[in-house]
Amino acid sequence: MSGEDTIAAIATAHGEGGISIVRLSGARSLALAERVIRCPKPPLAERPTNTIVHGYVTDQGRDVDEVLILIMRAPHSYTGEDVVEIQGHGGHVSARRILRCVLQAGARSAEPGEFTRRAFLNGRLDLVQAEAVLDLVRSSSDRAADMALQQLEGRLSDAFNSIYDGLMAAAADLAAALDFPEEDEHPQLIDRPLALLHKVSDKIDQLAATWNEGRVIRNGALVVIFGGANVGKSTLLNTLLEYDRAIVSPIPGTTRDFIEEPFCLNGIPIRLVDTAGIRHTESELEREGIRRAEDVIAKADLHLYVMDASRPLSEQDVANLTIRKPGKCVVVLNKSDLGVQITPEDLQGYDAAVTSLIEKKGLCDVRSLMDKKLIAGMKSGPADTDTPVAISERHHDLLVKAQADVKDALAVLNEKHDEAPFLASEKLQSAAESIALIIGRSYRESLVDEIFSRFCIGK
Amino acid sequence: MSGEDTIAAIATAHGEGGISIVRLSGARSLALAERVIRCPKPPLAERPTNTIVHGYVTDQGRDVDEVLILIMRAPHSYTGEDVVEIQGHGGHVSARRILRCVLQAGARSAEPGEFTRRAFLNGRLDLVQAEAVLDLVRSSSDRAADMALQQLEGRLSDAFNSIYDGLMAAAADLAAALDFPEEDEHPQLIDRPLALLHKVSDKIDQLAATWNEGRVIRNGALVVIFGGANVGKSTLLNTLLEYDRAIVSPIPGTTRDFIEEPFCLNGIPIRLVDTAGIRHTESELEREGIRRAEDVIAKADLHLYVMDASRPLSEQDVANLTIRKPGKCVVVLNKSDLGVQITPEDLQGYDAAVTSLIEKKGLCDVRSLMDKKLIAGMKSGPADTDTPVAISERHHDLLVKAQADVKDALAVLNEKHDEAPFLASEKLQSAAESIALIIGRSYRESLVDEIFSRFCIGK
Repeated sequence: MSGEDTIAAIATAHGEGGISIVRLSGARSLALAERVIRCPKPPLAERPTNTIVHGYVTDQGRDVDEVLILIMRAPHSYTGEDVVEIQGHGGHVSARRILRCVLQAGARSAEPGEFTRRAFLNGRLDLVQAEAVLDLVRSSSDRAADMALQQLEGRLSDAFNSIYDGLMAAAADLAAALDFPEEDEHPQLIDRPLALLHKVSDKIDQLAATWNEGRVIRNGALVVIFGGANVGKSTLLNTLLEYDRAIVSPIPGTTRDFIEEPFCLNGIPIRLVDTAGIRHTESELEREGIRRAEDVIAKADLHLYVMDASRPLSEQDVANLTIRKPGKCVVVLNKSDLGVQITPEDLQGYDAAVTSLIEKKGLCDVRSLMDKKLIAGMKSGPADTDTPVAISERHHDLLVKAQADVKDALAVLNEKHDEAPFLASEKLQSAAESIALIIGRSYRESLVDEIFSRFCIGK
Repeated sequence: MSGEDTIAAIATAHGEGGISIVRLSGARSLALAERVIRCPKPPLAERPTNTIVHGYVTDQGRDVDEVLILIMRAPHSYTGEDVVEIQGHGGHVSARRILRCVLQAGARSAEPGEFTRRAFLNGRLDLVQAEAVLDLVRSSSDRAADMALQQLEGRLSDAFNSIYDGLMAAAADLAAALDFPEEDEHPQLIDRPLALLHKVSDKIDQLAATWNEGRVIRNGALVVIFGGANVGKSTLLNTLLEYDRAIVSPIPGTTRDFIEEPFCLNGIPIRLVDTAGIRHTESELEREGIRRAEDVIAKADLHLYVMDASRPLSEQDVANLTIRKPGKCVVVLNKSDLGVQITPEDLQGYDAAVTSLIEKKGLCDVRSLMDKKLIAGMKSGPADTDTPVAISERHHDLLVKAQADVKDALAVLNEKHDEAPFLASEKLQSAAESIALIIGRSYRESLVDEIFSRFCIGK
């Protein structure tokens, strides 16, 4: 709305597809589209909202693409502003050329997430819902999409709003208590906000506990295969993916550049990574591969540590294993076809599966151990398993801050001195401010910048 | 139209984007969409064509995505049938779920290219235009997109139609000549179709010559870097791409799995491939890499043969080079910083550039030689450089067949015996049939199957 400029960007994914869309938003959307479009009368500006027009995008008299033009007027559009979508026939090259024409006509190239940012600024979405838009786009499993849509429809916002309202109600009660400074005469004036705050604090705990689950569902779990040289790591990758992604050979040090492939295990999105075998080597090249492997191992949500079970347990294996948390590690005792010198019992505390990948044996056990570890990781908190809503890292950080304020307020109130209602009230204001920052009731420009910079351009 | 079933597919590219589209086409599109959509009244079936409706896709009462629904009724739609597009908020997972809902409601999953196939069968496009749709989607450069759009708008179809019309006119002239069997009395009866056929034959030659250019513009040129071990092949890849895509080391045999990256040189789309160094080796693993390299080398449009110029010319290098055509090969004489024992003069007939990739020297020469070879390859025929229209392999095969028939007809006519007009007329019918197959005036089901099977699903 307002005096802001009109923005434009490609709104569909890159790559080969039947249709691509260039989207414009802003007060001049229709006027700018008019300049690049050849279509039957009446002009776009005179057409009603929510209509589709067939035409051509032209550049200096030359056709660029055959298109459909979608007109959606303010305020009932995605951004709340006048929106025009130009649906091109062609692939990404065509979309880029249409965008170029629109920019030449006077639109400004949209920043990442700027359409959704405008929807937020125009009150079409709160900040948590705006984040859900990004999650929905990025979701790599049904579960993630479900969670994002619930969030987009306001379910997570409701939870935050209820905490916010609880904090404000408690603060109002405390303000009332301040009017009656002789609190001994009205102990209930403190009891009510105290009870309310305990409830709010529990709610915060519950919500905070959904964080780990949310992270894995949103981003997918990073599962890294590692271990010594020539124990069958690439074979494990190929077997899990069910196709020959990596070259496999009996020669130690075959894999060098690490290989990452997406993969889905029982609805959990996974990025599966195969790494160079870790061993002492004089080869500069192999050391570079191992260095890259160590970087990615450090970031993993789950480690698949592959060992050659037909040989005795080496000191190197023990050393590699003991620096990993058993809760984040599955040991694969491979090459059982050549004899078994290491059994799961030898690895106290670690979950292990015996496999002969070459004979396609034991893979089921590996998969179920992976599932167990990843699900267990997700259920680390007392999450309400019925709700698909889960918070993000940003929400978590602010919730932790709000909870600290609430705990401080509770401590102060329990001391029961004269200043207590006043001091507690200040803490509650601070806690409420954290929650307000989560949902965007109040916001700093820098925070909003940072949130929307994670969006793709065109959303 | 007709009694055909209603088809559905995701029409946007996979991957992260702001908007994805599920498209339906067929007589029941509106009725099926109605079943999965929750939106304000009136029902979709009662709404006018070319309108946009806001709503939700639901699955058993549960929301799946917030969507826009686009209604485009027959016959003024892409396919000529009733078309509904469901524009989802979310990414590919959401689109897949919307598609699932629509399929459960009774739509059939569309075959690759089936929307465009229906457009063809309903007379909205001829076969050459339908192929242009695919080219437009696949185009990886402005030049390719231009060419495809011209083709979509009918410019290439016009060229084929003009050949077809010429053949039919000549055949009609010959039929008239058959009515006057004493041709000596009417030599002009043969002269006219003869002159016409010479013109048609020239047109066919001209059009056929655009084939190589068309192929490179459509598909991108496959440029393969190869050569002995440790001569700097991966460094050349990284330097051309301007980032460190491949691990580089002083150890021979570093690269194993071959690496392919897209890349654009002066508007020519290129798929650049780095391969394992070719050398005699006992390593099973390296031999597998070399075998894979040889496969891709055989398919290349251009070879970049890298040699270590600081060492004397080896027999292996000579052997590797002599089996390559000089017109398709650029030799990179690398490591000139270590001294130069091989100069371009030593490589008779081959274009060569002296480089020191490690010192970033000589890359300009490599790029201009690549450009020269690829452009020269494209201008191998007497193509009209003004026209961005160029034929595909399918067109080429049928044109060659048509040209053979035309040449036969010309030869027969030049013999001037009594049966000549009759025999020539038969040849011209056969030539016209080839052209009819190109534009789809007549077609075989199997041909149409094959053409549309190359499309993506959703187009």
